[in-house]
Amino acid sequence: MSIDPNRILQDINALAAFNATPNNGVTRFTYTPQHKAAQQWLVQRMQQAGLTVQIDPVGVVVGRLSGKDPSLAAVATGSHYDTVGHGGRYDGIAGVVAGLEVARALQEEGFVPQRPVEFIATVAEEGSRFGHSLFSSQAMAGLLQKHDLADYRDSNGITIEAAMAQFGLDPAQFAKAKRAPGSLRCFLELHIEQGPVLDHTGEDVGIVEAIVGMKELTVTITGKANHAGATPMYLRSDALLAACRMALAAEEAAIREQNGTVATVGSLQVEPGGFNIVPGRAVFTLDIRSVSEQSLERVSQTLLERLAQICHAESGLSFTCETKVDVPPVKMDPSLRQLLTEQAAKLGLSARQMPSGAGHDAQMMATFTPTAMIFVPSQDGRSHCPQEYTSPLQLANGTKLLYAAIQQLSGR
Amino acid sequence: MSIDPNRILQDINALAAFNATPNNGVTRFTYTPQHKAAQQWLVQRMQQAGLTVQIDPVGVVVGRLSGKDPSLAAVATGSHYDTVGHGGRYDGIAGVVAGLEVARALQEEGFVPQRPVEFIATVAEEGSRFGHSLFSSQAMAGLLQKHDLADYRDSNGITIEAAMAQFGLDPAQFAKAKRAPGSLRCFLELHIEQGPVLDHTGEDVGIVEAIVGMKELTVTITGKANHAGATPMYLRSDALLAACRMALAAEEAAIREQNGTVATVGSLQVEPGGFNIVPGRAVFTLDIRSVSEQSLERVSQTLLERLAQICHAESGLSFTCETKVDVPPVKMDPSLRQLLTEQAAKLGLSARQMPSGAGHDAQMMATFTPTAMIFVPSQDGRSHCPQEYTSPLQLANGTKLLYAAIQQLSGR
Repeated sequence: MSIDPNRILQDINALAAFNATPNNGVTRFTYTPQHKAAQQWLVQRMQQAGLTVQIDPVGVVVGRLSGKDPSLAAVATGSHYDTVGHGGRYDGIAGVVAGLEVARALQEEGFVPQRPVEFIATVAEEGSRFGHSLFSSQAMAGLLQKHDLADYRDSNGITIEAAMAQFGLDPAQFAKAKRAPGSLRCFLELHIEQGPVLDHTGEDVGIVEAIVGMKELTVTITGKANHAGATPMYLRSDALLAACRMALAAEEAAIREQNGTVATVGSLQVEPGGFNIVPGRAVFTLDIRSVSEQSLERVSQTLLERLAQICHAESGLSFTCETKVDVPPVKMDPSLRQLLTEQAAKLGLSARQMPSGAGHDAQMMATFTPTAMIFVPSQDGRSHCPQEYTSPLQLANGTKLLYAAIQQLSGR
Repeated sequence: MSIDPNRILQDINALAAFNATPNNGVTRFTYTPQHKAAQQWLVQRMQQAGLTVQIDPVGVVVGRLSGKDPSLAAVATGSHYDTVGHGGRYDGIAGVVAGLEVARALQEEGFVPQRPVEFIATVAEEGSRFGHSLFSSQAMAGLLQKHDLADYRDSNGITIEAAMAQFGLDPAQFAKAKRAPGSLRCFLELHIEQGPVLDHTGEDVGIVEAIVGMKELTVTITGKANHAGATPMYLRSDALLAACRMALAAEEAAIREQNGTVATVGSLQVEPGGFNIVPGRAVFTLDIRSVSEQSLERVSQTLLERLAQICHAESGLSFTCETKVDVPPVKMDPSLRQLLTEQAAKLGLSARQMPSGAGHDAQMMATFTPTAMIFVPSQDGRSHCPQEYTSPLQLANGTKLLYAAIQQLSGR
């Protein structure tokens, strides 16, 4: 098998260069000039690997290898190549580059599959630019809402549809990104773990049992901005203190579930924000994830009740809460997991059955085609930061498993 | 007496027009074009009121009315005319405009005082631009440190000294702003209360017993940014949660003092700030104020200990804490307070003896000359916001008391 760690590393490095924040992590937001340059590079690399390349209506790059019978449902693999702000080189990109390497290996070995094989590079998987995650896989699943394109904006107030138009796409065509029923045989996503488990155990790959469900809420608490010296404690309506109580309540509620459920306040803005002004407004995000749908519901319900309690306990506080994402836990396909487990054993790779704590495009793909995921280790469990790291050998191990699975699945 | 509410209102409106954020409160930061325009207007108005005007080395406007014996120590009044971001029309400005009205009334009535009278308009009382408050009164008191001019920067990274130079001042001359010992007989500052007490009681004026002491701290907590889904709760080093515990600890510690002590987290920044990233850094301000030096020390000591506990309780958290301002409580001069109390009674004004929960230039002036303060009511106790309001009649009441006191003090 001609899976080559050095070639993988070269592609990782090449993609990392399309970056809005050089020397401060990788920032490649969707529908930006960095995205455009990366897309062009990717199309070229796919063509060199013998694929026929198309860009779908939301900007997804699809490289296709015709099988002996092009009418059969395609075996697909892929991941995303957008990043968070000041993120790493591997999150999402690992799966795109693994796909490129598989395509090159198939080409080199002259392997002609029975079914077509698709290599998919998605966009806006991260919510980092528009606050809307799993964007293009939602579009492929036919689950994207028209109003989302007008409602979600980046920090400069640019809507998704305006950004698409600037990028050269026609936002009115977004619904055509939906994949035809039966067009895919299955979808496999290789991704970095983004957590510490494989790095701790030393295992080569993870085979994902289920992807956690996620609820993303944006909470705004409004109080009363007043002078921090002249306003007695008992006459305050301090929006930040209410937000702090919520952040701690979220931690407590997640821990209480005792099944790996997590809850995070990752973003918090205070207004007016002067050191000598009692905060009049606090806007924060609440990210809740669990493999258990029951835990997800219980934590979010508990926190909504707590929010009402906190805001009613002090006069002058009010709140709004908006659900940005609400995705149930998604089980991976049992027979694909079985296949991956067998192939890993054949290759001599140690494999761990494990949940995915992060959301992935795979969960949207799973709504219309059998789907599975391969994890490769993340050093120190770090991701979404410049320190994110997976070694070329670890990437090659995961890619070998992906290659073997694609050969198996497309050959029959 | 010719104190005229309409004339006061006109001056309030005129100064409010020198504003960087029209229709969104008044923003007049020190050493900006808005400041320059306001300064020029003020110099002209003072000259029209018969004063001889000078600008001191840090930009303080001093209008002087020569007494019969110009060698005597001057009776001084004044306040500041910079604002917080998106602030109101009255904070500081009320005292500057009251002084203008007193000068005009003295001029109209042909009153020739025994001693000189000084009308002082200070700058950078608010820490809103540079994070350094009471700047020019510190300079007048000879307490300003040379390195402060290089150390403190605005949000664009411009140092105080660079801003002074742009404004046309020579920062190297700052030490000459120090007032000669014995040059002032006393200092009176009229100011809006910035709290709800007079508005609730319906009293006309407040006579300040003491100005609270303040400690302003900037705390940075460093944790570990990691993926919000893939990092189990027990493996996190969440900087924001630690900051939230501190904000709630500050509230608790202030309330425990039971003597009006306040503690506020007014500003809080989270990094990286993505909704799906465990916060790796939180930077926040801690503002503690009390009329009791003991309470001030106890609360700040408690919070520093709590900060160490919180950061040691979870692995991977560290902190730094920088003291930006540390000013002890300042008692107002008893005989000046006595005089104000008597004059208020003569004028038929209801007066309340009360502490000042906000810091004021008066506390710096009190370090070198007997000092007292007159408060006028703040509607709903609001200040540092566009809703800040004191009626022309309420301003005139305070100005009448200021006028009477200046006549008394300068006539003998």
